[in-house]
Amino acid sequence: MRLADLETPALILDAAKMRANIARMNAAARRHGVMLRPHLKTGKSVEVAKAMTAGWPGAVTVSTLKEADRFFAAGFRDILYAVGIAPNKLAHAARLTREGCVLTLILDSLEAAEMVAAFGRENGVTLPALIEIDSDDHRAGVGPDDAATLAAIATALTDGAELRGVMTHGGGSYNSTTEEGLAAHAELERSGAVRAAENLRAAGFACPVVSVGSTPTALFARNLDGVTELRVGVYVFHDLVMAGLGVCAVEDVAVGVLASVIGHQAARGQLIIDAGWMAMSRDRGTQGQQVDQGYGLVCDAGGRALGDLIVASANQEHGIVARRDGGPLDVARFPVGTLLRVLPNHSCATAAQHGEYQVVDGGDAIVGTWQRFGGW
Amino acid sequence: MRLADLETPALILDAAKMRANIARMNAAARRHGVMLRPHLKTGKSVEVAKAMTAGWPGAVTVSTLKEADRFFAAGFRDILYAVGIAPNKLAHAARLTREGCVLTLILDSLEAAEMVAAFGRENGVTLPALIEIDSDDHRAGVGPDDAATLAAIATALTDGAELRGVMTHGGGSYNSTTEEGLAAHAELERSGAVRAAENLRAAGFACPVVSVGSTPTALFARNLDGVTELRVGVYVFHDLVMAGLGVCAVEDVAVGVLASVIGHQAARGQLIIDAGWMAMSRDRGTQGQQVDQGYGLVCDAGGRALGDLIVASANQEHGIVARRDGGPLDVARFPVGTLLRVLPNHSCATAAQHGEYQVVDGGDAIVGTWQRFGGW
Repeated sequence: MRLADLETPALILDAAKMRANIARMNAAARRHGVMLRPHLKTGKSVEVAKAMTAGWPGAVTVSTLKEADRFFAAGFRDILYAVGIAPNKLAHAARLTREGCVLTLILDSLEAAEMVAAFGRENGVTLPALIEIDSDDHRAGVGPDDAATLAAIATALTDGAELRGVMTHGGGSYNSTTEEGLAAHAELERSGAVRAAENLRAAGFACPVVSVGSTPTALFARNLDGVTELRVGVYVFHDLVMAGLGVCAVEDVAVGVLASVIGHQAARGQLIIDAGWMAMSRDRGTQGQQVDQGYGLVCDAGGRALGDLIVASANQEHGIVARRDGGPLDVARFPVGTLLRVLPNHSCATAAQHGEYQVVDGGDAIVGTWQRFGGW
Repeated sequence: MRLADLETPALILDAAKMRANIARMNAAARRHGVMLRPHLKTGKSVEVAKAMTAGWPGAVTVSTLKEADRFFAAGFRDILYAVGIAPNKLAHAARLTREGCVLTLILDSLEAAEMVAAFGRENGVTLPALIEIDSDDHRAGVGPDDAATLAAIATALTDGAELRGVMTHGGGSYNSTTEEGLAAHAELERSGAVRAAENLRAAGFACPVVSVGSTPTALFARNLDGVTELRVGVYVFHDLVMAGLGVCAVEDVAVGVLASVIGHQAARGQLIIDAGWMAMSRDRGTQGQQVDQGYGLVCDAGGRALGDLIVASANQEHGIVARRDGGPLDVARFPVGTLLRVLPNHSCATAAQHGEYQVVDGGDAIVGTWQRFGGW
């Protein structure tokens, strides 16, 4: 099987690029002496998970309890569910715990801590938890210096639950586009998590885990003193948003959607391809960046960019390919049936639209088909 | 099972609203005396397909060959694949044809017509096809008055393929927001398709099928003279984009995502819920409309809107709920665990993020779980 034997659209994963991305992140984590706890929400694939954890103890991060189910079934036993816990998921979490999974929850309020601990007491299970810290005023979490709330949550977690430490996610780093800015953001993330841990320790609570991470901060951090683990995910494939931040090169992007030209609108300088938003997702993450990549950067089937061709607009199963500057395009260069590969703005979002990866290894031979899953 | 017994996020389908939406579209089609050929790309569910085709001959429209496979297996035999055909799908199309499916293709160029006919001749199969017409300068298709191209395509389709007629999709209607504008767009669609059919007939080609449709034009058309069938899909669930166009009321939207409050950022007037863009999709279809609904309109668990609360921003598994005007919100009204239902901008996109519908019938009892599928 080669690329030309596939029906389009199809999600292509270049394993050679993935391996290089993994090696780079592994080196960053080793340089800082912290354990990698890769986030599996980008790949949602057992094969990708195994590649990300090779050489590490096998601790992982997930974004859904379905990921926890699937990766536990595949042999992963130390799983951090890194979305604030809701009451209707506690029975599911307890089931995994009883089956032998070390499933750690996160929460950021006394209310949630009391709920988790009460559930644990009533159901005879001890649920490990981290307190989520808001290190950059970005989304969720307790302020790192809010010692009173931290201590109250820690106290609530002493029976029916177990405080394991703190975690933060420097999601605000996605707005930094310079090496200096990314390094500063990494320090904000590190120092916030460490300060919160110190506040807990000063109040008499053990806080063995200090967990931080985002792909941009992990790759640009200058030191991770006091941090015990790094949670990163999108680095495994990278994408155009990461390239736009300067975190990777466009050539590092390991996933793309193989599409066929199905028509032309010569007068408008447009090609029509069979990859619309269903295949690419509606993610427009580069819209606010310096280079707007539309719904994706158009490459030849082998993944080499074709000048400044982008998917300028998208319907459900139609992508409209045009020059980024809207200028004239010689559509005759792209007859019906021409294969193109479109690199995604956001690999988590684009991969989520597909049920499998067609794996190549630098060339155009299909060397494997890896299943992925979605849902909750 | 009731809503409160579900793990969140979960896709809720209110069958009572769906039935009312179907009845309204059925009445519009009957008023115009045209056959309904519902588009199944919104529901991607056998149960939804059966509800849409009840009382009709069972002709349907699909957007992927996987839909054709699944719906053919479920008993649908007259299937229009309404995306321009690519060469790598012809073997699949021929397989379905040999199995007894009347699978009609669409194309809009002599190049594609010659490719389809050559494939048919070489493989001993006759593939039925419609010529796609560009009635509103919107996306794909041959101009309705380009008699020479229409005749050339029709000629190319005489051996190995079979010209069945013409089809158009007035997708530009999504930019009309008045009854008058929608009616005018419906007439553009109708008259374009009919003119193209007349050009073909004048050149000596039979053109039995004149197929048009989009939910807005179908509901606001004043006459459909010369049209033989109506292709419509999103009406089955409707969504906030349709409500923003005045095509339906917000109360008609039949699908929503059940979510839990998982935290608060009181100082920012925000709730955090466990429905992010993975559950809602990244579709921001109301962004350019008069009322921007963010990533969705926030309702109580029963589906009644809570003032002007919207999902103002979204990460993969986190939704940030805030007032549309950014004003203060009493977050204490929404303790952790509160169930909310979020109505989608675009039901095709939001439903595609889920593997099943939890079906209610006006109340909060789960009366069924309907599987849906994705992929190609």
